[in-house]
Amino acid sequence: MSIDPRDPVAVAQALIRCESVTPAEGGAQALLESLLAPLGFEVWRPTFSDEGTPDVANLYARRGEGEAFVLAGHTDVVPTGDEARWTEGPFSGAIAGGELYGRGAVDMKGAIACMVAAVARALDGGPGLAGPVAFLITGDEEGPAINGTAKLLEWAHARGERFSGCLLGEPTNPEALGDVAKIGRRGSLSGTVTLPGVQGHVAYPHLARNPVRELAPALTALLGEPLDEGTEHFEPSNLEVVGVRSGTGAFNVIPGDAALQFNVRYNDLHTADSLMALIRDRLDDALGAGAYALAFEPANADAFLTAPGPLVEAVSAAIEAETGRRPALTTGGGTSDARFIKSYCPVIEFGLVGQTMHQIDERVAVADLETLTRIYQRALGTAFG
Amino acid sequence: MSIDPRDPVAVAQALIRCESVTPAEGGAQALLESLLAPLGFEVWRPTFSDEGTPDVANLYARRGEGEAFVLAGHTDVVPTGDEARWTEGPFSGAIAGGELYGRGAVDMKGAIACMVAAVARALDGGPGLAGPVAFLITGDEEGPAINGTAKLLEWAHARGERFSGCLLGEPTNPEALGDVAKIGRRGSLSGTVTLPGVQGHVAYPHLARNPVRELAPALTALLGEPLDEGTEHFEPSNLEVVGVRSGTGAFNVIPGDAALQFNVRYNDLHTADSLMALIRDRLDDALGAGAYALAFEPANADAFLTAPGPLVEAVSAAIEAETGRRPALTTGGGTSDARFIKSYCPVIEFGLVGQTMHQIDERVAVADLETLTRIYQRALGTAFG
Ligand SMILES: [Zn+2]
Ligand SMILES: [Zn+2]
Repeated sequence: MSIDPRDPVAVAQALIRCESVTPAEGGAQALLESLLAPLGFEVWRPTFSDEGTPDVANLYARRGEGEAFVLAGHTDVVPTGDEARWTEGPFSGAIAGGELYGRGAVDMKGAIACMVAAVARALDGGPGLAGPVAFLITGDEEGPAINGTAKLLEWAHARGERFSGCLLGEPTNPEALGDVAKIGRRGSLSGTVTLPGVQGHVAYPHLARNPVRELAPALTALLGEPLDEGTEHFEPSNLEVVGVRSGTGAFNVIPGDAALQFNVRYNDLHTADSLMALIRDRLDDALGAGAYALAFEPANADAFLTAPGPLVEAVSAAIEAETGRRPALTTGGGTSDARFIKSYCPVIEFGLVGQTMHQIDERVAVADLETLTRIYQRALGTAFG
Repeated sequence: MSIDPRDPVAVAQALIRCESVTPAEGGAQALLESLLAPLGFEVWRPTFSDEGTPDVANLYARRGEGEAFVLAGHTDVVPTGDEARWTEGPFSGAIAGGELYGRGAVDMKGAIACMVAAVARALDGGPGLAGPVAFLITGDEEGPAINGTAKLLEWAHARGERFSGCLLGEPTNPEALGDVAKIGRRGSLSGTVTLPGVQGHVAYPHLARNPVRELAPALTALLGEPLDEGTEHFEPSNLEVVGVRSGTGAFNVIPGDAALQFNVRYNDLHTADSLMALIRDRLDDALGAGAYALAFEPANADAFLTAPGPLVEAVSAAIEAETGRRPALTTGGGTSDARFIKSYCPVIEFGLVGQTMHQIDERVAVADLETLTRIYQRALGTAFG
């Protein structure tokens, strides 16, 4: 059975049938190699490993010499949940009611299929490709993201690969194709505040010091004032206290310490360093320096923005030409591998409609696969700045 | 080997050698029976049981007919901790440097020994007993206190036993014999406040509702204003938040709920019911009625006070005569079985020096056992109101 690479539905079905629940490769990258090599791509499939994490398969493919325009994505998918609850099997690739069912249909095997089809059509009498094209595909986006895109980019860069721009196919549209393209992401910083006390018996509070008394001012310091008002392309930064813990469970024991955990999603007014200093200042003011301990998790995701320019314009124009709408250019939502790519070249994200991603009955309208293929092909014709 | 009941040191040593770690009887009550019966006491030893708790041995003994003056205490002791860390074995009853070592030396086998000796001396040419005397001894004070004094009092009352007053031998003195007698106890009330939220991902806070945002106002409502200023015989009531819990441990999840646990030690301005209403009012004001859930633990320890009168005066005068100091009359510290006794007769607590209670190397000055015996004997001569 041979798959026509110009047909995004056939490619998407074949990819969905590969059981590539993260970190398994499941045959998905082997399938891509079998489709890209005949189109003239040179294909590399490096596996990366790290202590304490599973080995992960990755794929890099390039067609043409010089600075390449990158199509990026991941073949790994999240677990299926209860398979019995799926209308069509999560690895069936079945089509029902005009929709293609399966884990990864929108996040993001569907989009990868559109990328392959767009390139195949461009090489087969379409508008053509204005320059070299590369595929940057990982199997570790839904997992720890240790042995995935970050290492693949390092590996490629060390080999002399250079990129003019990147289109990442994550599902960006909340409702309909054309809603949203993402031109940046907020940064993420996590930390823990520990408030020391002196444990004791509730009947003898003068012999103890209850750290919970400092929790209210600590919470007010963190939550009271907004971190900023937002910027042109970013929402206001947001801090959430995601955990609070104190006490032994016994009603007669004054706790010996208290701790709270927080996470900040921050915009381009901050870096991890400036935000750490700001949080420390606020806690110093509220509690006094030395009255608490503050520890941050390793920070690896500063906010970034791909400023409007040729790449953003090429993709926006392609979307408008095919859907009749210009996408909103946003920076909200969770992190993606764009946080790694942005250090190598401008990156924009545009993919399918995300409504069913990570859910039972993940599925994509078959019509959307055709439209997204046309958008990608049109962008490829103009995005080589 | 026969023990002289007039010798508090010998009796205390014999009691300490009984391994009566709660709820074990360990021979301690059998020993008391063997000492009291020859002194003319009728002795009953009822065992009480309740589903989910161990059976517990208790002892009630009375000498003389009619309303009895009660000497109350417990033979059970807390666990020894690491026996290797004791200077003298916890069940050795060894004397070293003028101090008698052992678990229960001060809490409260030593005091029970003094009670026995005081009665024995009174019957043997001392000032005599002005009326009938009873011993109310449980083996469930350090445990759940379900099958102990509360049931023994019910049992005795049902048999027609009546009491004129009670001296409970808990260790009341912080530093030296004569410091403190306790004439009441604060009440204790525990509860849990639950704050509902909507769990979600930190990147999409508008789809979640973080219950931690309500923690600061909840804490301020509970801790901000004092519950009262105290009364003539009581310290101000005190609320401690003894536990706070929210979050999954993950930095990227907005918690679905938050909970805090509190305990109040309260004075005679409140009852459990009035305090429950007060706490609910404060939380309603801060959070809005219906914005939280509030659950109280079963309340069984309202504040109580034995008003100064003949009993308090008899014990205070006896202490002053033997130590040269009038004790402070306080109501602080933890709960004791006095909370059960107070429903049957006036009760005062006076015992040994509590410094080493519940610790490694619990011990009592041998001289204190003699002095406490004299105090008890003197009180017995005058306390029959
Ligand atoms: Zn994805
Ligand atoms: Zn005790």
